[in-house]
Amino acid sequence: MLPIALDAMGGDKAPAIVVEGARYVHKAHPHVRFLFFGDEQQLLPLIEKNKIPKHLYDIIHTPDRVAMNEKPSVAVRKGRTSSMRLAIEAVRDGKASATVSAGNTGALMAMSKLVLKSLPGIYRPAIVAVMPAIRRKIVLLDLGANLQCSHHELIQFAYMGDAFAKAVLGMSNPKIGLLNVGSEEEKGHDEVKLAAKFLKQPECPLNFGGYVEGHDMVEGSVDVVVTDGFTGNIALKTAEGTGKMIRQIIKETIESSFLAKIGFLLAQPAFATLKRKIDPRSYNGAMFIGLNGIAVKSHGGSDGKGFANAIRVAITLVEQDINNKIIEELKGTDMTSLGIAPASQPRNEPVFLSDVSESIN
Amino acid sequence: MLPIALDAMGGDKAPAIVVEGARYVHKAHPHVRFLFFGDEQQLLPLIEKNKIPKHLYDIIHTPDRVAMNEKPSVAVRKGRTSSMRLAIEAVRDGKASATVSAGNTGALMAMSKLVLKSLPGIYRPAIVAVMPAIRRKIVLLDLGANLQCSHHELIQFAYMGDAFAKAVLGMSNPKIGLLNVGSEEEKGHDEVKLAAKFLKQPECPLNFGGYVEGHDMVEGSVDVVVTDGFTGNIALKTAEGTGKMIRQIIKETIESSFLAKIGFLLAQPAFATLKRKIDPRSYNGAMFIGLNGIAVKSHGGSDGKGFANAIRVAITLVEQDINNKIIEELKGTDMTSLGIAPASQPRNEPVFLSDVSESIN
Repeated sequence: MLPIALDAMGGDKAPAIVVEGARYVHKAHPHVRFLFFGDEQQLLPLIEKNKIPKHLYDIIHTPDRVAMNEKPSVAVRKGRTSSMRLAIEAVRDGKASATVSAGNTGALMAMSKLVLKSLPGIYRPAIVAVMPAIRRKIVLLDLGANLQCSHHELIQFAYMGDAFAKAVLGMSNPKIGLLNVGSEEEKGHDEVKLAAKFLKQPECPLNFGGYVEGHDMVEGSVDVVVTDGFTGNIALKTAEGTGKMIRQIIKETIESSFLAKIGFLLAQPAFATLKRKIDPRSYNGAMFIGLNGIAVKSHGGSDGKGFANAIRVAITLVEQDINNKIIEELKGTDMTSLGIAPASQPRNEPVFLSDVSESIN
Repeated sequence: MLPIALDAMGGDKAPAIVVEGARYVHKAHPHVRFLFFGDEQQLLPLIEKNKIPKHLYDIIHTPDRVAMNEKPSVAVRKGRTSSMRLAIEAVRDGKASATVSAGNTGALMAMSKLVLKSLPGIYRPAIVAVMPAIRRKIVLLDLGANLQCSHHELIQFAYMGDAFAKAVLGMSNPKIGLLNVGSEEEKGHDEVKLAAKFLKQPECPLNFGGYVEGHDMVEGSVDVVVTDGFTGNIALKTAEGTGKMIRQIIKETIESSFLAKIGFLLAQPAFATLKRKIDPRSYNGAMFIGLNGIAVKSHGGSDGKGFANAIRVAITLVEQDINNKIIEELKGTDMTSLGIAPASQPRNEPVFLSDVSESIN
């Protein structure tokens, strides 16, 4: 069995959406065992209602939950018996292969760093997710774990993004791009230029496609887009917001005229296909990559279908052995011999406040 | 007469689009005199073809032009007799009230800084433009002039964005937001937090609306969005790219089924209205704000209609006396007495390479 620890109390509509998520997943993945961390009284009737077979789950009663608006530092200090914390500890202790939570992003990031620690050699864990682009899905990181990044960190993000694209999207040789304000060599600040200098050396095993701009990213000119957490967070949310804005304007346009309404009814089946293709729920599930254990964040406002997708991401990451792939990739690269020695030792301490953001909530 | 210096040789389709732009503008603005800086041999037949009355223009023959891909530092050094440089110098010398160019952004920024210098008290000029959001237009800066910004610079951008929104969009008390990864007080890096600390003091005369995220920006939750040039550039291009992506997907969706095609034909008039509303050409024209003179950048790939809009932006900025408004706004604010003394003296020297980007091209 493949045990997945679910923070059943995390998310705006928890625990209902967590149990529903498990219902959507269990038939296609009968080898997965769900460990529900949360309030037993609330969970039992939900699990019965969703008809999850008894041999596929355990309930681990937790007296406490992390509030969605709690400060990460407070959650770490006071949330030792919370569903979130105990689900993460199950991964550390080998009782679960991964954890999934729709709870407070900053708290989940801080607790995961503290409990799981970084992978050997990793300077800073990052938040990575899949987003839609024209004709393909792309991988974007960091989405908000590290608001300011050195070039060493950006370079490691490239390696981690490469491993993630291979594992989750099944790509064989993903093309990596660095997000920048222009495509020419002299563009960008020092960190991005130094990262590019390393990544384009022939000794670097990655398939580096150079700089990409905001529009290149959504056009899908590369498979993996690497940037600092401040820019990545804002780019992702701007893309999501623009999509929402255009959908709203189109809706109002259609409602503004009788002919347009009739026209839309005729076009409805085609638009239903489109809607499925860019449904945000099928992109739900961001990984805290670079940690010594798999922690997946679901959108806080997710419904059951969205949460199910986050569980599927976790299952894929476990089955694809993502963390060993990252370690292997990094082993093959001697940064010092390539003239890019790290500025400092890997940082394993938990980092609060300024570098932990509610990035993908 | 209000003389506007046009860099007739700048842009992918120059000089044709520059002369066309003047044609679209001259009837509604018969008090504007166009100073075409460029190759007289090419300009004369174009001006005749576009029937621009003789008393509304001058041609200033320039032997040289700045290439679209020239490095800014090279353009500054070698482009002393270029159409771009001489158009900017006309503003400095009081022969023109503003200049408009669709040429190389980095070169235009570097030359404008060198020739026009900063306004008194301004640390760093920025690139500012209007972009569409739901139900309103918003102002965004910096779009790429300063890739990394101190909080002093971000605060001044807020003042300059305020003056720009009042002048160009006719707003009386624009709400200012700082782009960030979350809306809570503890979110963000130090620069953004320090800027917020200043802007929310009761002594600060601006209408500060706090932090905004990527999706808030496109939803139009504030009128002016302030950020560093790296993030602003990527946010703008991501929004533009996402819009383009969605239009393309919709087009393919419509073409995928016969009923959808019929439906779209019925909805066509409504969509034509929508298309006009979000036509990128009606948002063309970014200002280099904070300079001692008005320089407006048109998109490099602009057509005549787009260039005309950039000329209109320049006319509005002159007529609204934008620069005196900025000076007045800043005069009313004693940063030192509010506990936010600038880290260094205003920088007036031209800055090349790393801080000059092809931001809006």
